[in-house]
Amino acid sequence: MADPETRTLSSPAPAVVLLSGGLDSAVALASARDAGYTPYALSIRYGQRHRIELECARRLAETMGVAQHRTIDIDLAAIGGSALTDDIPVPKEGGDGTIPVTYVPARNTIFLSLAMAWAEVLGARDVFLGINAVDYSGYPDCRPEFVTAFERLASVATKAGVEGYGLRIHAPLLTMTKADIIRRGMELGVDFAQTSSCYDPDAGRLACGRCDACRLRLKGFADAGVRDPASYVDSVRGP
Amino acid sequence: MADPETRTLSSPAPAVVLLSGGLDSAVALASARDAGYTPYALSIRYGQRHRIELECARRLAETMGVAQHRTIDIDLAAIGGSALTDDIPVPKEGGDGTIPVTYVPARNTIFLSLAMAWAEVLGARDVFLGINAVDYSGYPDCRPEFVTAFERLASVATKAGVEGYGLRIHAPLLTMTKADIIRRGMELGVDFAQTSSCYDPDAGRLACGRCDACRLRLKGFADAGVRDPASYVDSVRGP
Repeated sequence: MADPETRTLSSPAPAVVLLSGGLDSAVALASARDAGYTPYALSIRYGQRHRIELECARRLAETMGVAQHRTIDIDLAAIGGSALTDDIPVPKEGGDGTIPVTYVPARNTIFLSLAMAWAEVLGARDVFLGINAVDYSGYPDCRPEFVTAFERLASVATKAGVEGYGLRIHAPLLTMTKADIIRRGMELGVDFAQTSSCYDPDAGRLACGRCDACRLRLKGFADAGVRDPASYVDSVRGP
Repeated sequence: MADPETRTLSSPAPAVVLLSGGLDSAVALASARDAGYTPYALSIRYGQRHRIELECARRLAETMGVAQHRTIDIDLAAIGGSALTDDIPVPKEGGDGTIPVTYVPARNTIFLSLAMAWAEVLGARDVFLGINAVDYSGYPDCRPEFVTAFERLASVATKAGVEGYGLRIHAPLLTMTKADIIRRGMELGVDFAQTSSCYDPDAGRLACGRCDACRLRLKGFADAGVRDPASYVDSVRGP
């Protein structure tokens, strides 16, 4: 894993950024730009029930100045197994510490594989994604060992890898708390009103304020002492 | 990598088999069944121009007795970079030893990620695929080190991995010549007339006989001393 904060580039290099439209991926995109990369944003329409995310991704890509924004369609609902793609209720009011039903099997492996494919076509040697191991909700593919294992795979899986050009997976938020991520995003000028975090498809354009993702987000804004500009159903609010 | 030939199962265990509809994947499916697994066949509609493959996959799944056959749609043409998805001519009459334009960036990583996702949903701990390092056409993701790196990734990337149930990636054809694969398929009763290998989309239901894939196939049948039951354009034939 390379730390984008410590690298200075002599000329702008392309980097693929996985952009879901959520808060974390917006800060990852801003981090890539801040580190001197030319961002190529990649979004995935994977059958998620909370599709408002993809509208947010489109707006973020427009306003944050990416070189290109592509959205790939992949029907993960055909595989099932997750409350994010199946007709399984999204849990409210906190989990029990185990891997939750909102876990989408192999999601980050699939998404990084697609980012790796586009990076190879672009000649990019860097991929950014906004995974986070602190508030990671118990997802196995949000941990440092996952990132390291993927970099190793990339070094043997692609034409670029065989030719000696490994892929650097940048996860600049990996060890940050949600409050840190929010502070970092504000420093970098991210407009959090354009991001969507809610997992609940029934909440529509308003966030439910009660699913795991909303609760983590609200706690992060509270801890950072900042008001969340997102719109929530009924009276859920930041500080 | 586990060798399916050396394992005996006390009760049928599910295994996901990547089934492209080509000769190799049909033999991989037969190998999984022969090793005592209950096969769940997974095909990927990835924007390949030679779509006849998927019809072959459907027929093979029907006649070879799989528990389920699923086809996932993913638009890799949105990424480009390959003669198999882009409007780039498929080369004829042999390559120059470098990685050819028919290479689809990160294809096997993407496909194995999808197989891993379905395996997790099914509770399967085994995935079969028909990659081959001998006649591998110069694709980096058809080599033993790729398979090993993917198994390592799987051990940290999924819920099953975290819970101690790693994924075994079976590549039973990895070190076999095309002639060996054909002989093995015949032992296992594979109907090669139902498989499609040709890369050329213009050849339609007939194989062109001249692209890399056709040439490898024809040479394999010739070396095995067996007549290829596939239909070719004009007068291209096995022995």
